[in-house]
Amino acid sequence: MSFFKKSLIVHEQLHGKISINSKIPIGSRDDLSVAYTPGVAAPCEKIASDPESAYKLTIKGNSVAVLTDGSAVLGLGDIGPLAALPVMEGKALLFKEFAKIDAWPICIDTKSTEKIIDTCRLLSPSFGGINLEDISAPRCFEIETALQDLGIPVFHDDQHGTAIVLMAALINAAKVVEKDLTSLRIVINGAGAAGIAIAKFVSRTGFESYSDQAVQDVIVCDSKGIISKNRSDLNPAKKKLLSYSNKEDRKGSLSDALVDADVFIGVSKGNVVAPEDIRRMAKDPIIFAMANPTPEIMPEDALNAGAKVIGTGRSDFPNQVNNVLVFPGIFRGALDGRAKTINNRMKIAASEALAACVDTPTPDKILPHPLDRTVAPAIAKMVRAASRY
Amino acid sequence: MSFFKKSLIVHEQLHGKISINSKIPIGSRDDLSVAYTPGVAAPCEKIASDPESAYKLTIKGNSVAVLTDGSAVLGLGDIGPLAALPVMEGKALLFKEFAKIDAWPICIDTKSTEKIIDTCRLLSPSFGGINLEDISAPRCFEIETALQDLGIPVFHDDQHGTAIVLMAALINAAKVVEKDLTSLRIVINGAGAAGIAIAKFVSRTGFESYSDQAVQDVIVCDSKGIISKNRSDLNPAKKKLLSYSNKEDRKGSLSDALVDADVFIGVSKGNVVAPEDIRRMAKDPIIFAMANPTPEIMPEDALNAGAKVIGTGRSDFPNQVNNVLVFPGIFRGALDGRAKTINNRMKIAASEALAACVDTPTPDKILPHPLDRTVAPAIAKMVRAASRY
Repeated sequence: MSFFKKSLIVHEQLHGKISINSKIPIGSRDDLSVAYTPGVAAPCEKIASDPESAYKLTIKGNSVAVLTDGSAVLGLGDIGPLAALPVMEGKALLFKEFAKIDAWPICIDTKSTEKIIDTCRLLSPSFGGINLEDISAPRCFEIETALQDLGIPVFHDDQHGTAIVLMAALINAAKVVEKDLTSLRIVINGAGAAGIAIAKFVSRTGFESYSDQAVQDVIVCDSKGIISKNRSDLNPAKKKLLSYSNKEDRKGSLSDALVDADVFIGVSKGNVVAPEDIRRMAKDPIIFAMANPTPEIMPEDALNAGAKVIGTGRSDFPNQVNNVLVFPGIFRGALDGRAKTINNRMKIAASEALAACVDTPTPDKILPHPLDRTVAPAIAKMVRAASRY
Repeated sequence: MSFFKKSLIVHEQLHGKISINSKIPIGSRDDLSVAYTPGVAAPCEKIASDPESAYKLTIKGNSVAVLTDGSAVLGLGDIGPLAALPVMEGKALLFKEFAKIDAWPICIDTKSTEKIIDTCRLLSPSFGGINLEDISAPRCFEIETALQDLGIPVFHDDQHGTAIVLMAALINAAKVVEKDLTSLRIVINGAGAAGIAIAKFVSRTGFESYSDQAVQDVIVCDSKGIISKNRSDLNPAKKKLLSYSNKEDRKGSLSDALVDADVFIGVSKGNVVAPEDIRRMAKDPIIFAMANPTPEIMPEDALNAGAKVIGTGRSDFPNQVNNVLVFPGIFRGALDGRAKTINNRMKIAASEALAACVDTPTPDKILPHPLDRTVAPAIAKMVRAASRY
């Protein structure tokens, strides 16, 4: 039976993949008086006089809102907030499974950037963090940026989660092919939330320091080809790319971009890279073909054309680039460290911690297994430490 | 140890009284593919084409937001949304314990009526109902009224929960003293959310039919005395009371109002009724002294002054008027019936079902024990049936 059919059946049986658990059994009036009135007045008054104590006395310190407007859900696109709910529940489930975080789906019935920002602000008291999810570009950039002063971490996983996992994969892939990371020539195909986040992260754009870690040669393509200065059809987010990518102002198609490139990173759609494209790349090409369900090029085709390391978004091939490797650990670390944001230092720490989870990288193992339960605690530890600076 | 001290210790130990439970253990990549990507696309697409199926495929059909602005929390008043969180968690816990409902606390950082209404609308996709809680009058009336077209039940428990429990208590108390319910002379002290809701409910004001069930003689007092036409200090909510209460336009103090009254209902503050007031009431007075922690008159004083049936808000006296007797069952019934509102018929059904939970009412037993697990299912059954008309 296909995963789709099986998933529908399981969802029909469960009526929701998460549930609430009561931590205080109510067996007597005394239990009620402690958990609820009149006793509950004591923690309320304590928090009223010392707001920070909410982290100790309530769920705030362990709770994350998985918040979406349903405008860019998986490969399904703009299916709206209600239809996005199964994904948000799934994410909440993974938060619990991998990081013991209590996450709750919040599906917002608007696409107004301003209203989404407002709603996050209004909801912030009872959450310890907000995981923005499946919100379409460019609104996702604006929303996340506007909320960095909220006092709790606000993190758009489709951008940074993907970028961090990819970065970890790249660190280990560079080791496998014995090339210097910062000297790699990287071509990214796809200029949505994930593509732009990857471009910024590998080039350390917007980072105050870390210029010694910056990959210098990054080209981003969209469906029209290389994003270059002569293009008159670029939206503001793509225009911004020109300030840190494609420094030599190359022009042309994705195929043109791939000539002599060391790395291809696809966050686009299936079958857009041909074996000849791989053959024209530099020696030992590194390929991340992350489109789902059909990769930009099938792993066996890439391998036959000379690719050395291949990662995809799929679970049935080696090196699955899966956000579940990062978001549980990064939020766990941020919550444990009472971080007010998830800053660049913490993102770098997460990518390095994830890369370090693989002892000896090989072409078939540049990332840990997505279900490896040691990953989230390892990332959390480093992220927490990084949050302290 | 006091309940307050004990509650603080328990809250410190637990870091939150509720937690999320994952219903699908993730032990393999297949589990991940069913609970999350790629399989989750199937329920998403199903909901996109058939929104109603969300009730079957997600938590929507079993989830309730416990939503507050923290403006009128218990006896603590306006302590704000963060300090209100322990109460909202407690409520969520009781939803689970008594009705297997998955409720989540939503503490909103604004007191703007308009913004609270907007936020409820924006949050509605992922919830099956909204329990408004501890929002101060008169905003609570406006917010609840504005949201009755939302498509999911929106219910302000401080108003209707209290009114429904009180009504059930009154039904049984009238049986004990062998008086006709609709002929009772009732005096309510307190004209906030609960007092006004009780006045409307017992007089069936705003109900399309049910005039045969309406108590005819209701007087409401506030801290200045009887709410009457000559008062120049009434806010709009209190002015509205004049259209259905105090039909004889009596004037004076609470003591004056109580002369020859059959029932006193206190939702005010401690020690505002004297034994002499009880003595001046009609034969076999019924007293609900619900102020917490100190009742309007202590039960033993009321009893010595001739009261026949006495209810309080406290767990250490008989006949505790506790909202936990109603809100779990009424939401369970509304969710099971896929009701779009909790209408008057359902509220009446809830009060009658609750009253019927006591086989033979006696002065010491006009309400079931607050922890009686048979109450919520009994109420849910009748509320669900009433939702079908």
